[in-house]
Amino acid sequence: MRTNLPVPERALAVGAHPDDIEFGCGATLAKWAEAGCKIALLVCTDGSKGTWDATTDPAELVVTRRAEQRAAARALHPDAEVVLLGWHDGELESGLRQRWEVAAWIRRLRPEVMLGHDPWKRYRLHPDHRNAGWLVTDGIVAARDPLFFPELDAPPHRPSTLLLFEADEADHVEEVTGYGDAKLAALLEHRSQHRSTMGIFSAPSGADEALHPDVVEFRRGVGDELAAHGALAGCAAGEAFHRIEGL
Amino acid sequence: MRTNLPVPERALAVGAHPDDIEFGCGATLAKWAEAGCKIALLVCTDGSKGTWDATTDPAELVVTRRAEQRAAARALHPDAEVVLLGWHDGELESGLRQRWEVAAWIRRLRPEVMLGHDPWKRYRLHPDHRNAGWLVTDGIVAARDPLFFPELDAPPHRPSTLLLFEADEADHVEEVTGYGDAKLAALLEHRSQHRSTMGIFSAPSGADEALHPDVVEFRRGVGDELAAHGALAGCAAGEAFHRIEGL
Amino acid sequence: MRTNLPVPERALAVGAHPDDIEFGCGATLAKWAEAGCKIALLVCTDGSKGTWDATTDPAELVVTRRAEQRAAARALHPDAEVVLLGWHDGELESGLRQRWEVAAWIRRLRPEVMLGHDPWKRYRLHPDHRNAGWLVTDGIVAARDPLFFPELDAPPHRPSTLLLFEADEADHVEEVTGYGDAKLAALLEHRSQHRSTMGIFSAPSGADEALHPDVVEFRRGVGDELAAHGALAGCAAGEAFHRIEGL
Amino acid sequence: MRTNLPVPERALAVGAHPDDIEFGCGATLAKWAEAGCKIALLVCTDGSKGTWDATTDPAELVVTRRAEQRAAARALHPDAEVVLLGWHDGELESGLRQRWEVAAWIRRLRPEVMLGHDPWKRYRLHPDHRNAGWLVTDGIVAARDPLFFPELDAPPHRPSTLLLFEADEADHVEEVTGYGDAKLAALLEHRSQHRSTMGIFSAPSGADEALHPDVVEFRRGVGDELAAHGALAGCAAGEAFHRIEGL
Amino acid sequence: MRTNLPVPERALAVGAHPDDIEFGCGATLAKWAEAGCKIALLVCTDGSKGTWDATTDPAELVVTRRAEQRAAARALHPDAEVVLLGWHDGELESGLRQRWEVAAWIRRLRPEVMLGHDPWKRYRLHPDHRNAGWLVTDGIVAARDPLFFPELDAPPHRPSTLLLFEADEADHVEEVTGYGDAKLAALLEHRSQHRSTMGIFSAPSGADEALHPDVVEFRRGVGDELAAHGALAGCAAGEAFHRIEGL
Amino acid sequence: MRTNLPVPERALAVGAHPDDIEFGCGATLAKWAEAGCKIALLVCTDGSKGTWDATTDPAELVVTRRAEQRAAARALHPDAEVVLLGWHDGELESGLRQRWEVAAWIRRLRPEVMLGHDPWKRYRLHPDHRNAGWLVTDGIVAARDPLFFPELDAPPHRPSTLLLFEADEADHVEEVTGYGDAKLAALLEHRSQHRSTMGIFSAPSGADEALHPDVVEFRRGVGDELAAHGALAGCAAGEAFHRIEGL
Repeated sequence: MRTNLPVPERALAVGAHPDDIEFGCGATLAKWAEAGCKIALLVCTDGSKGTWDATTDPAELVVTRRAEQRAAARALHPDAEVVLLGWHDGELESGLRQRWEVAAWIRRLRPEVMLGHDPWKRYRLHPDHRNAGWLVTDGIVAARDPLFFPELDAPPHRPSTLLLFEADEADHVEEVTGYGDAKLAALLEHRSQHRSTMGIFSAPSGADEALHPDVVEFRRGVGDELAAHGALAGCAAGEAFHRIEGL
Repeated sequence: MRTNLPVPERALAVGAHPDDIEFGCGATLAKWAEAGCKIALLVCTDGSKGTWDATTDPAELVVTRRAEQRAAARALHPDAEVVLLGWHDGELESGLRQRWEVAAWIRRLRPEVMLGHDPWKRYRLHPDHRNAGWLVTDGIVAARDPLFFPELDAPPHRPSTLLLFEADEADHVEEVTGYGDAKLAALLEHRSQHRSTMGIFSAPSGADEALHPDVVEFRRGVGDELAAHGALAGCAAGEAFHRIEGL
Repeated sequence: MRTNLPVPERALAVGAHPDDIEFGCGATLAKWAEAGCKIALLVCTDGSKGTWDATTDPAELVVTRRAEQRAAARALHPDAEVVLLGWHDGELESGLRQRWEVAAWIRRLRPEVMLGHDPWKRYRLHPDHRNAGWLVTDGIVAARDPLFFPELDAPPHRPSTLLLFEADEADHVEEVTGYGDAKLAALLEHRSQHRSTMGIFSAPSGADEALHPDVVEFRRGVGDELAAHGALAGCAAGEAFHRIEGL
Repeated sequence: MRTNLPVPERALAVGAHPDDIEFGCGATLAKWAEAGCKIALLVCTDGSKGTWDATTDPAELVVTRRAEQRAAARALHPDAEVVLLGWHDGELESGLRQRWEVAAWIRRLRPEVMLGHDPWKRYRLHPDHRNAGWLVTDGIVAARDPLFFPELDAPPHRPSTLLLFEADEADHVEEVTGYGDAKLAALLEHRSQHRSTMGIFSAPSGADEALHPDVVEFRRGVGDELAAHGALAGCAAGEAFHRIEGL
Repeated sequence: MRTNLPVPERALAVGAHPDDIEFGCGATLAKWAEAGCKIALLVCTDGSKGTWDATTDPAELVVTRRAEQRAAARALHPDAEVVLLGWHDGELESGLRQRWEVAAWIRRLRPEVMLGHDPWKRYRLHPDHRNAGWLVTDGIVAARDPLFFPELDAPPHRPSTLLLFEADEADHVEEVTGYGDAKLAALLEHRSQHRSTMGIFSAPSGADEALHPDVVEFRRGVGDELAAHGALAGCAAGEAFHRIEGL
Repeated sequence: MRTNLPVPERALAVGAHPDDIEFGCGATLAKWAEAGCKIALLVCTDGSKGTWDATTDPAELVVTRRAEQRAAARALHPDAEVVLLGWHDGELESGLRQRWEVAAWIRRLRPEVMLGHDPWKRYRLHPDHRNAGWLVTDGIVAARDPLFFPELDAPPHRPSTLLLFEADEADHVEEVTGYGDAKLAALLEHRSQHRSTMGIFSAPSGADEALHPDVVEFRRGVGDELAAHGALAGCAAGEAFHRIEGL
C-alpha cells in the first residue's frame, strides 16, 4: 500500500453526479487545498434524477443541485473551482463526443493529479459511475497527445498521476486525519440528497443540524469508512485509491 | 459464501439467448416457482444465429426457438411467463434504447429478485452475454428512480436483490437439490441447440431421449456443474451467483 | 389550397423549442381549444441555449423557459396540456431512442390531429427544427402500428391528419381571424426570448407592455404573417400548413 | 420526360419492406425479366410490424412475409432472385453498418440498373422508405470505388443508371403496357398485407380471388396509377421514376 | 436573382473532399481574395477513396491530396488558409462530434460569409456532400450562440451570410468574369483527380499541360458552367448559389 | 501455468496501433513463423497520433508508420502478412461496423490461433487497446457462426485458441528463448516511436544503432520483460498470455 502523494499544484476530480466527488475523495481534496493546491471538481451529469419524490420538477432539481455542488466545493475549500457539464443524469455515455469535452477541460485546467471513478470496479451498479470513469481514462489520453484537437488553442497536457476512487483494487491511501469534517460538511451541503443517499430525514439547517440523530448516524458511517480506508495503510483516517502513474 | 434467499414473490431472469437462463439459473427458478414464486424469463435476442447449419432459414429458426423457449419455461414451471425481446442474435447492444425497454419490463413485472449474466465476467467471449448483463444492471437503475420515463404509466420499481450467474466472483449459492431434473428438462426443450451447444446428435424425441448416450453425457455434465456449485456452500447441488443488494 | 379542418377532439403540436409551437400554429390551437378541442403542446428541447447573454446560467434559463412555456400554453387556452421532454437545446437528435419517446406520448394523448415542423423545409438552418419534424413523422408510424412497443400498456393510436408548419409547400390554411391576439399573448409570455427572437428590448411587464414600440413592431410582424398566410386562402388571417392525411 | 431504358442485363431493386418493390417497379421488372434481364429484389426489413392485428406473433409474420416475397418475385419472373436483409421493420437505419451490407450485395449482384425509393420524396411519412432510399444512393458510392472494402474479394461495381420510384420529381417513364397483370399478381401474393395495405378483406385464394369485389377495386386502383404514370409519357401504362445517370 | 455580395473581410468555404470547394466557388474565392478578403478552405474528408486504381496506397493518396489541396488554394490566392479535417472519405457523418469540430473552426476563423454544399440538393448521390452541407448549417448554429462550448476560450461567432453551392434552388450569382482561369488553375492542381473527375488522361505537367486536348476539353466544360451560371444574372461568367441571411 | 501451444498453421495477431503486436507477442510470432506457421498482423488504427511533436503532419506520419509496420513484420519473418485497417488513432471504437470488418478478415485469413489485447485488463489507460481487445473477442463470434454475413462468399471460420497479451490474469506462456532479437529488431523498425514509446533519442540507423546507449537500455527492458514472463513457467524467456479455448 502506497501513501500520500506530494501535494500537487493543481488537482482535478471528475464525478458522475453532484456529491460523488465528495464521497470519493472529498477529504483528500480538502487536505491538498489547504496546503495550497488549486482544486477543481468536474461533474458530468446534472443530477436530474436524484430524488425519490416523483412530483419533483427535474429542472428545478438541477438548479438546486448546482447550487449545492458549488456550496459543497466551497466547504472543501473557498477557492475550489466547479465545472458542471450538465449531461442528463442516468444517461451518461462515454463516446467520443463526451470524451472530447472532458479532454478539453483537462487541457484548460492542467492538473498534475486527476481523480475519478474506477471504471474497472466490479459489482457497482450505476452506469453513470462506470462511464464517468471511462471519461477520465480516455480523456487523459486525448488531452496528452499533441495531435488531438488541432482546432483548439489549448496545448496538450499530461497529468502525472491518476487516483481512482471506488477502486476495484486499492493500492494507495491518502491520510486525511483532520479532514473528515470538511468532507462531511461538503456532503451535507447536498441537502436534496439527504433522504435518498444519506438516510437523513428532516434534519434542520443551521446549528442544530449536527445534533439530528440521522446526521449523527451518517457522520458515523462516513467516519467508519475513513477509518477502514486509513487502516489499510496504518493511519487513523484515509481515502483509498488505485493509483496509476506514467500516464 | 451466502446461501438461499427467502423465496421471492416475483423473480425475473434476463438472458442473452434462448437457453441462457436455463443454463444460468434454471434450477433456482424451478425451486422458487414450486414454492409459489411468480417467475418470468426475459430473453434479449431472437437466437437467429444459433446453428452450425448454413442452410438454415434464420426466420424459421427464430420461430422454432421461440416455441422451444416457451416449452422450456413451462418445464421449469407451468405458470412461468416468457418475454421475447427479439433483438438480432449476435448484435445485441446495451445502449439507451435497449436499456429503456428492459427497464419498462422491470416496471411492468415488478420482481423482488432479478437474475442475469454477470457483465464483469472475465474471459467469456460472447458479446451478447456481456451486453445482456449490462442491460440488467443499467435497466435496474432506470427502473427504480421515479423521474425516468415520465411518458410511462408504470410506477418505478426497485428490486431488492440481483443475482448474477456466470459470476466472475461467486459469493452466493442457491441449493437446488431435487431441481436438476427440471433444469435438464428445460434445457432439452431447446432441441435446435442440441447439436451446437449440448453435444447431442440425433437424439429421438419422447421417452427414449433420456437413454440416448449423448443425452446421458449431457446430463452428467449438467449434474457435475450443479455439484461443483453446490460444493461451494457444502450442499449436494447448487447454482452459484454473485449477489448484489441495496439496489 | 384547402382550408379549415373540422375541429378535432384532441390535437397535439410538437415543437423543437419553447415558443416554436406558438409561432407555427398558436392561433389555430387557440381557435380549436375555444371550440372544445383538448390541445397539448409537446416541446422537445429545454431551450437552454436560447440567449445572447453568455453569463446566463443555463439551468436557471431552463426553469424560466419551462414556466414561460406553461404560461404561453395557458394564454392559448387555460386547459392546454404541456409536455416538456427536456432534451438538450441545439443537440436534438431523431434516432430510435427519441422516436420511441414521442410515440409513447402520441399513444398516451391520442390526438386526432397532429401539428409539427415540416422536416422537408428547405433553407431553414436550425437542426433542431429538422429533427423535431422527423420525430413527428417517424413517431406517428411507431405509434400507429400495434406490434411496436409490446412493453407498453398503451394501445396503438393513429392520428387522422398531420399539419406541418414552416411548410416547404403549403397546401392548407386554417383561418384564424380573431385569434391573432391569443397567439401574440402566448408569444409574449416567452419573455426570455424577447430580445433574441422578437426584437423586443426592455419592454415592461403588465399593462404598458402593449404600448412599448418594440412590442408594437413585433405585433405588426406577427399580424403581417397571419395576413399573408390567410391571403393564400382568401381570408383575413390564417396559418398555413402542408397537410397529410391517410396516416 | 424520358422513356424506356434499353433492357439491362441485370437489374437490382431495393425496397424497404416486402411489397414495396412490387408497388414501385413491379411491372418494369416483369417486362425486363421477360426480355432476358436477370432481376433481383433486395428487401431491407423483415416486415415484422406489418399488421393491424395486435395478437399476431411477429416471428411467424416474418416467416409468412418471406414466403410471400419469394412468391411475389416468382410472379414477376420465375428466375427472379430475392435477398432478404431482415432488419427490424420500422427501425431501419441508414448508417455505415447498413450501407456496407447493401454495397456488398451490389458488388455481388453487379446490376447495370438499380431501382429504389426516392429518398428526397417529400411528404411521405414512413422513415423506412426514406432510409431504404439513402441506402441505395450511398451504397452505390461505396460499391463503385475500388478502395472501399479491402477485406472483400468482390471487385468494385458501378451501375450505369439509377431509377428512383415514388419520385419527388419524375422525369422518366417505363412503358409497361401488358405487364400490369404480373405486377398485380405479385402484389396479391402478399396476402398478409391484403387488409392493411390493399383494402382487401377476406378474399379467397385461388381462381375466385380475382372476382372478389375488394380485389376488383384494388386492381382498378393499380391500373389507374399505371395509366396516370403512363400518361406522363403518352403511353397506355407506365411506371414513373426519377432517373440518375453518370453514377 | 440577387448578385454580388459586398466583398467580405473573411470568408470560409467548407467542402466534402479536396477539389469540391474549387468546383463550387473557386472563382468567387479568387475574386474576393484579390479584393482583400481573407479566404479559408476547410476540407472535411481526406480524399482517401479518390481513385479508380485499386492498387493505390490510400495513405499515400492522402498525402498527395493534402499537397494538391494546398497548391490549389494557393492558385486561388497565395494567402489562402487551408484546414484539413481528415475524416475518412466516403464515411463522412454529420453527428454532434463532427458538428462541434466545424463549429470550433468557425469560431476560430470568424468568417463574415460562409460557403458550402447545399444539403437540400436533390438527386446528387454522394453522401459526403450531403453531410458536409449539414455540417455547415448545423455548425453555424452551434458557433453563433454563446452557451455552446463553455469549455472553449473562443467567443461565439455569427456569420452574416451563407452561400450554398450545388444549389437545389439558386437565387444568387457572384459575377466572376476574369476569375475562371484561377478556378481552372486551382482545379488542375488536383492532379490525382485528373482521370477520375476531370476526364484528363496523361496530361503533362508544366507549360504544355494547357494544350493537351483533355485539358482543353475540361477547360471548355468549366467555362460552359461559368457561362450558364452567369447567364442566370445576365453576366458573362458567374457562380450560382442559394443565399441565406439572418443567420 | 500452461505452456507452448503446438505450432499452428496460421496465426493472426490483432493490435491497436503499429508496434502493439510486436510488444505483445512478437517473439512468439517469430518462433512460430520460423517453424512454418503463416503469420499475419492486423493493425486497427493508423497511428496518426503517435508523436510528441505537435508540428508533425499526421498524414505523413501515417505513411511512415505503415512502412515501419511492414518492415517490422518482415523482421519477424519475411513472409509475414500485414493488414492495416487504418481507423483513426485514439478514436478506435468496437461497434458492429468495426466488428464486421475484423470478422471478415478472420474469415479470409482462417487462423487456427488468434492473439490480441486482453480487453479485461485492468488499469491500462488507452481506450484503443481495450477496444482492439473487444474487436478480437467479438469478431471471433461473428466469424465462426455460419449465419452471419450472408452477403460474403467467405465461409465461416472458427479459430481453436485465443491468446490474450497484456493479460489481466496470465495462465499461459510461450517460451521464446532465442527469439528476443527478432522481437527487438521488429520493435526498432518503428523508428517514429523511438522517442515517445521506447525512450530512444537520436539513435543512428544501421550498424551503430545497437551500440547507442538508449538502444542498449531499451533492449535491457525488453529482455527483462521476456525473462519475467518466462519465469512464470520456469523458462529463460517467454511471452505470457491468457489462453481461451473452445471458441
